[in-house]
Amino acid sequence: RIDGKRLWDSLMSMAEIGATPKGGVRRLTLTEVDRRGRERFTEWCQALGLTVRVDAIGNMFARREGRDPGRLPVLMGSHLDSQPSGGKFDGALGVIAGLEVMRSLHDLNIQTEAPIELVNWTDEEGSRFGHSLMGSGAWAGIYPLEKVYGLTDVEGVTVEQALTGIGYKGEHPAKPFPADAYFELHIEQGPILEKEGKRIGIVTGAQAQVWYDAKVTGQDAHAGTTPPSARRDALVCTARIINLVDRMMRARGEDGRGTVGQLHVFPNSRNVVPGEVRFSVEFRHPDFAEVERLAAQFPREAGFLARDCGTPLELTELFRLPAQPFDPACVDLVRQAAAKLGYPAREIVSGAGHDAVYVARSVPTAMIFTPCKDGLSHNEAESIEPEEAEAGCQVLFEAVLARANR
Amino acid sequence: RIDGKRLWDSLMSMAEIGATPKGGVRRLTLTEVDRRGRERFTEWCQALGLTVRVDAIGNMFARREGRDPGRLPVLMGSHLDSQPSGGKFDGALGVIAGLEVMRSLHDLNIQTEAPIELVNWTDEEGSRFGHSLMGSGAWAGIYPLEKVYGLTDVEGVTVEQALTGIGYKGEHPAKPFPADAYFELHIEQGPILEKEGKRIGIVTGAQAQVWYDAKVTGQDAHAGTTPPSARRDALVCTARIINLVDRMMRARGEDGRGTVGQLHVFPNSRNVVPGEVRFSVEFRHPDFAEVERLAAQFPREAGFLARDCGTPLELTELFRLPAQPFDPACVDLVRQAAAKLGYPAREIVSGAGHDAVYVARSVPTAMIFTPCKDGLSHNEAESIEPEEAEAGCQVLFEAVLARANR
Ligand SMILES: NC(=O)NCCC(=O)O
Ligand SMILES: NC(=O)NCCC(=O)O
Repeated sequence: RIDGKRLWDSLMSMAEIGATPKGGVRRLTLTEVDRRGRERFTEWCQALGLTVRVDAIGNMFARREGRDPGRLPVLMGSHLDSQPSGGKFDGALGVIAGLEVMRSLHDLNIQTEAPIELVNWTDEEGSRFGHSLMGSGAWAGIYPLEKVYGLTDVEGVTVEQALTGIGYKGEHPAKPFPADAYFELHIEQGPILEKEGKRIGIVTGAQAQVWYDAKVTGQDAHAGTTPPSARRDALVCTARIINLVDRMMRARGEDGRGTVGQLHVFPNSRNVVPGEVRFSVEFRHPDFAEVERLAAQFPREAGFLARDCGTPLELTELFRLPAQPFDPACVDLVRQAAAKLGYPAREIVSGAGHDAVYVARSVPTAMIFTPCKDGLSHNEAESIEPEEAEAGCQVLFEAVLARANR
Repeated sequence: RIDGKRLWDSLMSMAEIGATPKGGVRRLTLTEVDRRGRERFTEWCQALGLTVRVDAIGNMFARREGRDPGRLPVLMGSHLDSQPSGGKFDGALGVIAGLEVMRSLHDLNIQTEAPIELVNWTDEEGSRFGHSLMGSGAWAGIYPLEKVYGLTDVEGVTVEQALTGIGYKGEHPAKPFPADAYFELHIEQGPILEKEGKRIGIVTGAQAQVWYDAKVTGQDAHAGTTPPSARRDALVCTARIINLVDRMMRARGEDGRGTVGQLHVFPNSRNVVPGEVRFSVEFRHPDFAEVERLAAQFPREAGFLARDCGTPLELTELFRLPAQPFDPACVDLVRQAAAKLGYPAREIVSGAGHDAVYVARSVPTAMIFTPCKDGLSHNEAESIEPEEAEAGCQVLFEAVLARANR
């Protein structure tokens, strides 16, 4: 069995890197803080005798050899980057649990048939450069590497500059290599498991999504002298679009998701009618057809609002992701592990995007969810119990071992 | 007569300090750039033999003695600070035109009966610390100095720190001293003079206004996993309040003003339901009773919206300013000067706030407006013609001279 205390201690140790006063974590991708997280991860892997290689987008792979040189590796992992004010467990749980699996194999002197590789994917959150699942997306060939290198953060720093800046533009190619399976443990980030008293979520797939960058252009004008008829207020138009996003979400019932999470006003001065607003928009739904409908409706209706306001809207679709079912055989290994260990479990569709979604396009994949307090994530108050982390890690251990020795 | 070319050259010279690529100016109050503007102003004054004194809030007074030691000084001036992306003339015109009046008196060897003082008021714009007309307001005793010192910008820097930082916390007390009159030349910042082909606006007063700081508190949550019913989205609530401000403005017709100019989202990440939004709100109207009604209606209706959204609203009223009529005798001097010089003129109420509004509480005051292109201000494209600047300066010269020699 895995060591629950060691797992928890390492989670807490990783959470020190980028710790925030409110008990959360700020470990934005490809920053100095991310670099420190990566270094600690590397030290832990090397202490186990694992070799760590880095690919051209900064994804890290720690390899433990198997007995049979002819077997493809079984992958497991998640991400160490966080939201700007994120929690301790989103991503870190999957990576540190993978490390605990490696440590347990080492302690128990188990040599698996297939090699095992533990992965830390670059920039899963997408908060900084606008593309979630960036590292796994580049690896899977969904985004051409040159295009990904050119993405910029709000300061204009490119992905390539940021990678080089922290010394993580690795020499291995960022492209899919043959692998036997991929398992990712993650907190649910939603309320379902907790509400139903389940310890394990057997993730059957992830929902569809579409992301946009939006820019509304009005005209800077004096707030005291400019009469209503002469205003072209980019923020008033944006407010209507935010309401539209909310209405479109609610029209889909409890399965709908529609969010404006990021917004910048220019010139952002109290007595100036805003001349420009830039913001993000995203929609999600378990049914890809519904996301396709949202993606047809939104640009049209937002365009009408912008025309009404006399403030042109530029809309850039960043990516559109179909719903992704996971591999039935891998999902079954998760189901069997939970059953064998006696954990109450249920099938679940992921509301969040995960690296597993892109990996699943070329490697048989499954995910394991564990509950989190009040379903809260992307929040510094994100919280789980040590026994929940241990249970998830134990299931990961069983599933990976079963696959590697099949 | 004043020297129109010298006036224009000095305006362009001041506009170099904080010049933006788009032809505007960014000379935010109490920054290093503001300091450089103040130094240039001081050099120009000293070259004329004027003594410059600085008061405890950084207001600068350049004094030219009169013949009669018993006479109170006639003041003129405006402000050298700008919006974050402001124009070359908002404020600077009044200060540099005052300088040109001093230079002309010097060249023409005119000794006035009363002393004349040229003022550069600190932080007229209010963009950085949330209080427009800050320097004149502190001078006039509207805001207690200790309270003003404690105001902070978005980085948490206090007014007192910023003053000390650029070396402009002067030793003279910031309080009204006896003065005979105050004249301020300013661009209209609105479309009326241009539309009617008038060269001079005889400003009879300024409209009423009320400013707020608002904070909406929701809950950070994952955009992909959090269902509509579980969301407390601070930005969706804010969008409704922005719409409310716009509707309340439009319900007052062309005289109404209502603006949300500044807004910050937290944590401001694409896939996080916003947990907090902070923003500014202001309303204006020529009739103070209407502003009082707006100030009664807005907190109530915004509060209803916030309750509906489950996202509490905190509203802080920053200041409420009655409409301010100017002194009839001073206004008449402006009228007479425009008539004598043969400039087409009309009476006008100021849509913007001006330092003159606070000065008027203890000193007989009037203002002179000149047109600006397309009525555009608080915009880098703000633009006036050299002849317009010259005409305004000439009227200022006549009015000040008439008052000082009466
Ligand atoms: N797991 C997770 O929070 N991923 C971030 C990408 C997303 O927005 O779904
Ligand atoms: N003149 C001017 O733009 N003043 C700024 C204060 C205001 O918002 O009215």
